[in-house]
Amino acid sequence: MSLSKFFEPKSIAVIGASHEPEKIGYVILENLKVSFEGKIYPINPSFPEIQGLKAYPSVLDIEEAVELAIIVVPAKIVKDVVDECVKKKIKNIIVISSGFGETGDNKIEDEIKEIIKGKARLIGPNCIGIYKSGLDMMFLPRKRLKRPSDGVISFISQSGTLGIASLDLVAHKGLGISKFVSYGNALDVNETDLIEYLSKDLETRCIAAYIESIKDGKRFMEIAKKTSKIKPIVILKAGRTEKGMEASKSHTGALAGSSQIYSAVFKQAGIIEARTTGELFIFAKALANQPALRSNRIGIITNGGGFGILAADSIVENGLMVAEFDKETEKILKKGLPNYCSVGNPVDIAGDADVDRFEKGLKAIFEDKNVDGVLCSILFQTPKIEDLIIPVLEGCKAYGKPLVVCSPGGEYSLERIRKLERLGIPVYSAPERAVKALRALREYGEIIGKK
Amino acid sequence: MSLSKFFEPKSIAVIGASHEPEKIGYVILENLKVSFEGKIYPINPSFPEIQGLKAYPSVLDIEEAVELAIIVVPAKIVKDVVDECVKKKIKNIIVISSGFGETGDNKIEDEIKEIIKGKARLIGPNCIGIYKSGLDMMFLPRKRLKRPSDGVISFISQSGTLGIASLDLVAHKGLGISKFVSYGNALDVNETDLIEYLSKDLETRCIAAYIESIKDGKRFMEIAKKTSKIKPIVILKAGRTEKGMEASKSHTGALAGSSQIYSAVFKQAGIIEARTTGELFIFAKALANQPALRSNRIGIITNGGGFGILAADSIVENGLMVAEFDKETEKILKKGLPNYCSVGNPVDIAGDADVDRFEKGLKAIFEDKNVDGVLCSILFQTPKIEDLIIPVLEGCKAYGKPLVVCSPGGEYSLERIRKLERLGIPVYSAPERAVKALRALREYGEIIGKK
Repeated sequence: MSLSKFFEPKSIAVIGASHEPEKIGYVILENLKVSFEGKIYPINPSFPEIQGLKAYPSVLDIEEAVELAIIVVPAKIVKDVVDECVKKKIKNIIVISSGFGETGDNKIEDEIKEIIKGKARLIGPNCIGIYKSGLDMMFLPRKRLKRPSDGVISFISQSGTLGIASLDLVAHKGLGISKFVSYGNALDVNETDLIEYLSKDLETRCIAAYIESIKDGKRFMEIAKKTSKIKPIVILKAGRTEKGMEASKSHTGALAGSSQIYSAVFKQAGIIEARTTGELFIFAKALANQPALRSNRIGIITNGGGFGILAADSIVENGLMVAEFDKETEKILKKGLPNYCSVGNPVDIAGDADVDRFEKGLKAIFEDKNVDGVLCSILFQTPKIEDLIIPVLEGCKAYGKPLVVCSPGGEYSLERIRKLERLGIPVYSAPERAVKALRALREYGEIIGKK
Repeated sequence: MSLSKFFEPKSIAVIGASHEPEKIGYVILENLKVSFEGKIYPINPSFPEIQGLKAYPSVLDIEEAVELAIIVVPAKIVKDVVDECVKKKIKNIIVISSGFGETGDNKIEDEIKEIIKGKARLIGPNCIGIYKSGLDMMFLPRKRLKRPSDGVISFISQSGTLGIASLDLVAHKGLGISKFVSYGNALDVNETDLIEYLSKDLETRCIAAYIESIKDGKRFMEIAKKTSKIKPIVILKAGRTEKGMEASKSHTGALAGSSQIYSAVFKQAGIIEARTTGELFIFAKALANQPALRSNRIGIITNGGGFGILAADSIVENGLMVAEFDKETEKILKKGLPNYCSVGNPVDIAGDADVDRFEKGLKAIFEDKNVDGVLCSILFQTPKIEDLIIPVLEGCKAYGKPLVVCSPGGEYSLERIRKLERLGIPVYSAPERAVKALRALREYGEIIGKK
């Protein structure tokens, strides 16, 4: 059964919809109302109307067909409610409620599995469900959690809280998201199903995942291998250590395996492994938006000398190379830049650089045949960097080589950084992070080179 | 000669003050006017008045004594201007202007050295100078670069742009700074002088430094050894690789040495080495505000399960230990928390946790004799976390053990994070970063344990 109706339903029943603002069933309904354009059916046996919408005692009381059910009732009645959904021929069910396998008791989960077998697909339980533009079922208040704009990364997370906090963080920095799925205990729909679905989703250019366990290793390998040749997959695996594994058992009921085994499997499947929450999106936003690195020679340009040095250090330490410029490039740079600029690699165009200096420098470096990719460090704090730098950086796409930007700063910088992110130019707050992104682009270059 | 008048001058001459808004000499004067309460003398031979202040052709035309001179004239006349300052008996000189040793020519620097010998101290050239509350000479517009609030970390940076971009970044996140010094080519005042001065500065509780080279290794060792026993020193050394070293030569004219030598020297001197720009302040803000870790057993509490697992993984991977709670602690937690919470370490108080649950959990963990320090992961996105969590966390100081907080998020979270930072509670956007902070606190525990 395809998962597409989870993401494109025409009608949704919210089972456990509430009129009490502090209830999850209230916030979900509220957020669906402002985001979803299809038909919404609140289900609650005690009220004829909820938040201005006609309510129903049960899904069985709805006359029309329903494509998606979101369940937020207490764990002990979830089984009965799922049963009603199946009777109503709802084929897509999301169970937000917790209190299942993560408590150590798998009995109800097993019973629910039997009920839906061959009749419906189920995401959850113990999850946040789905977020995409036009479908916001997150039970987190919009005031507290900024929703990301539309983007080309899809993000699946076994942990709900890790998922939503990451969404909030990346949204703040201007990164867009295509689809977010928090899938919790993975009673039915698991990481492999979601990766398979997203591999065919035209809006998704990179799949980022936080996982605690893998349900079916063989199928996972098969799907991941196929997918990674079409689009990059980045995975952060939690429970790498014995202590982490113990913790994950009580979190999503997952049985995590040894770190070495996972790393080996990921490598074989063409998956890029993130070792920290930071790396997950450092990698994903570069991979989603920039071409892979064909080889490892990096050109550096900066209006802050210290950043050039740190970038050079980090490039070497990450197994990449500080490119040796062609003689012609240094000549062009010498001609085009003031004499106090440094025309070797890194090119230091000095703190008084303007956009013109960046444009000339970037052109010379990108056109150098000894350069495979470019790290551009921009300090928006310096007075001469006008916003025209944004289209200049966008124009670099034409060179067909990857570009990553390093730009640390506060609100003024962030406003510009958000614009760049929206244009698909990945921006990092530190040179070492920009270099990590390049390393991932090289890794993906090797993965697709092998096919 | 003491450096104190650099930081506490009663009067300042700005040589090269300008009335043209795009000039450095304009912005410096403008920022001094709004920040500095002493007397300011703009020096410019062409105008009788600049920005509403009486201007003088030369410092020699000022009748009163002047305690600090800031020089922003072109490199070729800096020598003559320094000469006039010395004649005027100004004992503290900051040369912002660039175009000296970093161009490969040390001649003028050597001549200036001769002029000031025994008569004045000089910071720079090729630098941004000093920032502290009440003394803002940064030539970066306030609109583009947020000034940090008062804090207990002092930060010295050989690179000006790295310095100011870092200030902007940390200010945005609410971190305060006591004194910032960009000292550029270190013609006279160098890293060791500044560390020695800051070691005696009562307002400075931690010294953070970005350096490209060390001028006098023996004296540096001696001062650093003494200082690190009184207050922590964190250093990010750039130019660790051959490529980085080459770049640093053309940046501040520094001759960087081998990475291994520096790391060994730092270790011997009790310096905590940061390997990335991120680590510099990850470490500094924990070290400045939290007690050192006496041993390595960490208690974890979280309202987001995934973060607990990742923290546990990271603790093990960083050579620390996930504490084994006392039996009594688990009993207390079981009694005080709902049954679906996880009372082992990490303690997972679930996504519906309120402040009371955090308070109970923190108390039990901090009071456990098997716990040396605590990592608390808070998701402000979840609806039940009220701002009362802030005084609860502040109250944890009473336990006398270090606390670090992990809290990823956008603007809503950031507003609360800034409040916590101002109270001396270090907050990190990822569990792995919070664990790095704990690692630094343990490292400092070992350093002071040795004395």
